[in-house]
Amino acid sequence: MPTTEQKLAAVHGYVDAFARGDTEAIVALFDANATVEDPIGTPIKRGHDEIRAFYQGSTATGAKLELLGEPRCAADYVAFPFAVRLEWQGQKSVIEVIDTFRLNDEGKIVEMRAYWGPENMKAG
Amino acid sequence: MPTTEQKLAAVHGYVDAFARGDTEAIVALFDANATVEDPIGTPIKRGHDEIRAFYQGSTATGAKLELLGEPRCAADYVAFPFAVRLEWQGQKSVIEVIDTFRLNDEGKIVEMRAYWGPENMKAG
Repeated sequence: MPTTEQKLAAVHGYVDAFARGDTEAIVALFDANATVEDPIGTPIKRGHDEIRAFYQGSTATGAKLELLGEPRCAADYVAFPFAVRLEWQGQKSVIEVIDTFRLNDEGKIVEMRAYWGPENMKAG
Repeated sequence: MPTTEQKLAAVHGYVDAFARGDTEAIVALFDANATVEDPIGTPIKRGHDEIRAFYQGSTATGAKLELLGEPRCAADYVAFPFAVRLEWQGQKSVIEVIDTFRLNDEGKIVEMRAYWGPENMKAG
């Protein structure tokens, strides 16, 4: 079971890597066989190559994350509410999102799922 | 697929039922075969009888919920951040939680999972 410290480190490492636009630091948080579903209902990315391609797209928008409350840890999961600020179709936008990470014993993310929809995106 | 309106109605119905301490109104939000895992990692409650017993315990604490941001809808899920205010061992307490609901086409909750740990509980 991952520790609370590992779960919080994954969340803060993720936010910090976005702040630097450091795609490789994001990828390094994930297990080699991890899955990413962002948002839920869209095709799942599997493994470092697909995950890298996805986050290269994200960091290219200049997306920065701001936590909107404390991370919630339970068993091998952590969930956290945050705002994403980015340029979307030439417009400054903010999206309120909740992500869940499931971690392995090494503290690597094995499953990421993102909860957000069009009604969570606003001009900002 | 449940609509955004159904997902938001489930969240607001849940908060409102806690405000009234109305266990039956909570149970009525769930499908007959739904599961509740609160917090994740604890034994799963299945079906209306087990779900009723669980929420009778919750409403007996006087627990009231306050949304801490907008619900996030994606596919058949909705996730929402909130605070629970309750009496815990004679002490007024607040817990910051994230719940996820998965809904069926009738707008009933088929799966509820709650993310929170001891570090999210504070005097309040």
